[in-house]
Amino acid sequence: MTKYFRKKNEIAVNDYIEGIVKGDRVILAQAITLVESNAKRHFEKGQQIIEALLQRENSSIRIGITGVPGAGKSTFIDAFGTYLCDNGYRIAVLAVDPSSEVSKGSIMGDKTRMERLAKNPRAFIRPSPSGGNLGGVNRKTRETIILCEAAGFDVILVETMGVGQGEFVVRNMVDFFILLVLTGAGDELQTMKKGIMELPDLVVVNKADGDNLSKAKKAMHEYNTLLHFLKPYTDGWTTKAVTASAIKDSGIENIWKLVYQFVEQTKLSQVFEKRRKDQQRDWLHQFLKQELYQSFYHHPIVREKLSHYENAIINGNKSVAASALELLDLFRNDKY
Amino acid sequence: MTKYFRKKNEIAVNDYIEGIVKGDRVILAQAITLVESNAKRHFEKGQQIIEALLQRENSSIRIGITGVPGAGKSTFIDAFGTYLCDNGYRIAVLAVDPSSEVSKGSIMGDKTRMERLAKNPRAFIRPSPSGGNLGGVNRKTRETIILCEAAGFDVILVETMGVGQGEFVVRNMVDFFILLVLTGAGDELQTMKKGIMELPDLVVVNKADGDNLSKAKKAMHEYNTLLHFLKPYTDGWTTKAVTASAIKDSGIENIWKLVYQFVEQTKLSQVFEKRRKDQQRDWLHQFLKQELYQSFYHHPIVREKLSHYENAIINGNKSVAASALELLDLFRNDKY
Repeated sequence: MTKYFRKKNEIAVNDYIEGIVKGDRVILAQAITLVESNAKRHFEKGQQIIEALLQRENSSIRIGITGVPGAGKSTFIDAFGTYLCDNGYRIAVLAVDPSSEVSKGSIMGDKTRMERLAKNPRAFIRPSPSGGNLGGVNRKTRETIILCEAAGFDVILVETMGVGQGEFVVRNMVDFFILLVLTGAGDELQTMKKGIMELPDLVVVNKADGDNLSKAKKAMHEYNTLLHFLKPYTDGWTTKAVTASAIKDSGIENIWKLVYQFVEQTKLSQVFEKRRKDQQRDWLHQFLKQELYQSFYHHPIVREKLSHYENAIINGNKSVAASALELLDLFRNDKY
Repeated sequence: MTKYFRKKNEIAVNDYIEGIVKGDRVILAQAITLVESNAKRHFEKGQQIIEALLQRENSSIRIGITGVPGAGKSTFIDAFGTYLCDNGYRIAVLAVDPSSEVSKGSIMGDKTRMERLAKNPRAFIRPSPSGGNLGGVNRKTRETIILCEAAGFDVILVETMGVGQGEFVVRNMVDFFILLVLTGAGDELQTMKKGIMELPDLVVVNKADGDNLSKAKKAMHEYNTLLHFLKPYTDGWTTKAVTASAIKDSGIENIWKLVYQFVEQTKLSQVFEKRRKDQQRDWLHQFLKQELYQSFYHHPIVREKLSHYENAIINGNKSVAASALELLDLFRNDKY
């Protein structure tokens, strides 16, 4: 009798694992939905699947892509991804966008804007996980990478919209990081976030076509001048700027050559392996810190009293150290 | 009878306050020692003094100074501070150095290297607070600034050795930030920390004298080219590079002119006032987060189990999310 009460859609952990390893896209998509769920039961099941798949060897390459609004990220990913598929790779495209609750529409729009890729049987496109803060999006995307790799995708492209701390989060989950820019380095950089120029392994001046070509070449030189002054993100690798046109499909092959060269070189020097390990360790500590913050900042007594203390400090009525210790005392005594 | 048992050195809170406001250097030095103490009783007394002094109006200028080793920070502070004293200002020189436990000697050495300033009755030099982590040093230096301002010092110079996160901490406690550099922008920047070039309000190419003059001018131009690409730290202010020679006392007056112009301009635009308020608020949150971390990371069960989880994660035996939640459970259940 009881079997009639069992939920029909309830797939067992082993079925998920088997399906993913076989490369079943429907099961993969369902597993991603599971790890994206905020429900406790789903979370536990998701972790069991993740832990079973962690052990599997794979030689994937994780590439992060960011850029100023209008730099042509979707068109670039469409061209770059199609080039990779044509060369025998299976690719997954994921997005990290902490503001996705608001802009869900535009993310779905991205999917339709990646016209060629969306139809390619070797490509898998997954929009940004919705809901939750950047920490939640971070976890969900990292776990989705693991699932996609277990399903046999060779290259994982992680796109970020450059909202909030998106670039820093994505930099910390990929092997290679591409910054897409447009012409006019000086003006453009003034509007970019602090520290962003020190993140990429490659700067791509996009839309280098038609009337824009000479301006793009000039911008490439300007970016190379700037990069000369900055410390490259990856030990032993010189970050440089190149031009490309996603619309004309030019420069795309060269970019893949550079990625490939980077991977060969960093695997030889063991920088590749070390980075992956460091990223895992960092992620653990980020996760821990975030949970600790949340338990404090979401606590009713802290939410109630915080602005009172902030104002007292700004008005010179209370010292910072004394205020902090009082707030911590209130938190600890109230909770336990 | 009991009065014979009262400790002779025990000064009352009000005596501290009165002495500091009068500008009594001995009392000021003792009050700084009090806020630097890690003992609970001293801490509480220190906070009472700080809170009484917070309310006092003052129009101090807080200037942070950092630079690569060998850039001549002490000589520069000696020349710059002497110039200010000669022009009627009273100045305090503080140091933030998270590694001061190790290098106490060199800090005391700095004091003797600031030869002219050490003898100047308008100057007050205080070495870096020793002991404790960067968070502790941070609190102690911020509170020392408040005490020095209440004692009538007009310009507070905060030096940092550029160790650990020193520059970022000091940037967040001053109005104006100076980066001292040497000749050869390209080579030098490669050895600097990521993000450092986006912190200063002024870059000073030091040692622009004798045979070095033309090289210094060239480095100034290179830094200005680079700064053109970067977003200035302060809204409405263009960070630029100038040359100076601390030994020849050249360029010093120009630097003070720039600081003065900055202060006038940012006070008019209210960026000055806003920054001070933001710094107070940020400090509260930094303090809170750090206390939360410490209670977690210093907890015996976390210290015991952390590396076990880290290894399990790196070896692919456990997921990050599941590990983090297990560790947090262990912490919470053990503690309460």
